[in-house]
Amino acid sequence: MTNHEQQLIFTNSVAQAIDAAVASLLPSSLFIVTDTNVARLVLPKLVAESERLAAAKVIVTEPGDTNKNVLSLQAIWQALVEGGANRRSVVVNLGGGVVTDMGGFAAATFKRGIRFINVPTTLLSAVDAAVGGKTGINFLGLKNEIGSFCNADAVIISTRFFDTLPQAELLSGFAEMLKHSLLAGPDQFNALLSFDILNSASHPDLSLITHHSSLLSLLEESVMVKKRIVTADPTEQGLRKALNLGHTPGHAFESWAMASGHPVPHGYAVAWGLVVDLVLSVIQLGFPSADLQRLASFVRTHYGAIGITCNDYPALIDFMRHDKKNTDGTSIRFTLLTAPGEVELDATATPEQITAALDIFRDLMGC
Amino acid sequence: MTNHEQQLIFTNSVAQAIDAAVASLLPSSLFIVTDTNVARLVLPKLVAESERLAAAKVIVTEPGDTNKNVLSLQAIWQALVEGGANRRSVVVNLGGGVVTDMGGFAAATFKRGIRFINVPTTLLSAVDAAVGGKTGINFLGLKNEIGSFCNADAVIISTRFFDTLPQAELLSGFAEMLKHSLLAGPDQFNALLSFDILNSASHPDLSLITHHSSLLSLLEESVMVKKRIVTADPTEQGLRKALNLGHTPGHAFESWAMASGHPVPHGYAVAWGLVVDLVLSVIQLGFPSADLQRLASFVRTHYGAIGITCNDYPALIDFMRHDKKNTDGTSIRFTLLTAPGEVELDATATPEQITAALDIFRDLMGC
Repeated sequence: MTNHEQQLIFTNSVAQAIDAAVASLLPSSLFIVTDTNVARLVLPKLVAESERLAAAKVIVTEPGDTNKNVLSLQAIWQALVEGGANRRSVVVNLGGGVVTDMGGFAAATFKRGIRFINVPTTLLSAVDAAVGGKTGINFLGLKNEIGSFCNADAVIISTRFFDTLPQAELLSGFAEMLKHSLLAGPDQFNALLSFDILNSASHPDLSLITHHSSLLSLLEESVMVKKRIVTADPTEQGLRKALNLGHTPGHAFESWAMASGHPVPHGYAVAWGLVVDLVLSVIQLGFPSADLQRLASFVRTHYGAIGITCNDYPALIDFMRHDKKNTDGTSIRFTLLTAPGEVELDATATPEQITAALDIFRDLMGC
Repeated sequence: MTNHEQQLIFTNSVAQAIDAAVASLLPSSLFIVTDTNVARLVLPKLVAESERLAAAKVIVTEPGDTNKNVLSLQAIWQALVEGGANRRSVVVNLGGGVVTDMGGFAAATFKRGIRFINVPTTLLSAVDAAVGGKTGINFLGLKNEIGSFCNADAVIISTRFFDTLPQAELLSGFAEMLKHSLLAGPDQFNALLSFDILNSASHPDLSLITHHSSLLSLLEESVMVKKRIVTADPTEQGLRKALNLGHTPGHAFESWAMASGHPVPHGYAVAWGLVVDLVLSVIQLGFPSADLQRLASFVRTHYGAIGITCNDYPALIDFMRHDKKNTDGTSIRFTLLTAPGEVELDATATPEQITAALDIFRDLMGC
């Protein structure tokens, strides 16, 4: 059982960082777990830069959350056995959350646990899955139903792989960064709102390298917000609820969109949920209205609007209520803010207050 | 990840002990994992004595090491899902090593780990599997290839279930107790040699209850020997090698018997291995010859002889060498004793010395 602190490395010299991290572990042999997309788009460049990776055995899984299952897990275990992995072997998980979750779980349970290094290739997995030691697979259609808590020996975070990501994927990860920035304080919040995540042609003077280096430093700040919270409250007793900001309405939007047959990316739902939570924060706690306006404008510009009408409110409020962590009599629990960086963990809102907030949300988002 | 110390409870009031252990965990629901034999022979009595167990959902697996596999594991996971298990549920693993290993692993990985209680029903699982937190399954024919280290919240050890065990099963467990007693010192060693493990008619004055209570207290002393060693050396750096006493020749006997088409129980091979290791201890370290004679006589009486001849020595020595932990140039590593309770961790013997020891072993065992 490896419950040690994991080393977080922020760098765009990924191959060198992997080599150094692997070398420090003195492995008997090295395995790479990745998916077919990453194996095609990313792995060849890394292998060209690293003799260690070039010599590693590669285990390729099918991409996508539906393949994060017990069959793929068994295939990884089997490839480790057939590749001669032993207790001193090391696994490098190169990919998004599916690969790091499932490859981490395979390593955590192979011969009762071998060491592994995570190299997230999506913004969402970099910002979210890099801290906390959660590994696992889906089972019988239930998300992360089987798994364990096991820290990687190192997590190597870079922005180098993001150029090949679809915009929706980038924006999904950025929504979690927005959440962290709101928990951190005005400086981080302002820095994110003025960052052009899609690096569009409106900033022709911003070179790609500068863009990457700016994003990497924002990403480091963002990951550190989560790390501080998780470290202070490893067993989810209190402070960690802060990470629920935006997620009570966010999950409701996500479930509603799924039920209506037009699913939305998780990060989009979180971005809209952040706006709702800030509306409630303004009403109940005097959160600065100007900050709400700026977030709403950013979200409307980048994420668009979710097509809800007042007829959908009862269903949305029902979804909020059904998250079992969220009920408190007739009121529903929210994580709110008195200001950027000032968290109120145990706020509640009545269905009437939520209805009012959703009205304002629709005004702000133009839907 | 639950790496807490597990509570060890020695009692023959098993149902009450389970009730108390379960009650202290305040579970949302209770599950019993067991096999078809234990479900038939043991479970009904316990259920009759415990309302909590009577109300638990029962998950029954097929018995035997060949069923300690990923299919049975999935069936347990699925039964937990379908039984509505959540993070506050508790699993009681009731059975031998197969059930406690596999049920423990299922619990350790369900929703990233729920709490579990082990109730071993065989002497071997009580003496061996109760300490150390090893959980897991076989995979692709490899023993315990997949698993994790995860302590049970409580282990409830009794002798109450041993009456239904085959004699060979009892003797297998007793061999591990003999090993522990040799590591502990003369008192425990003498107590075991004078104990009638099979409770035969030669002691008509020994009532069944007295027999159980004597065995339970010997079992507690024995488990505590292992616990002290594992606690002092959790990561197998040194002292824990003491637990290898009897196992270098024991594994060789086991592999040789398997290869010759007449497999022997693990504990029998260990009993014979203990005699070989004491022969080497007498020759190399002046271990008291009288103690060797007494062990050899006990082993010959209870376990019989293994049918080896001098023609089998090269194969046996090869098996000893092939255990990768055991090679040191031409010599082979052994854990030996200068006296009961006095361990020499890094002894070695040359093939010639092993040959001489095997000659003496055959004389002592009459084979």
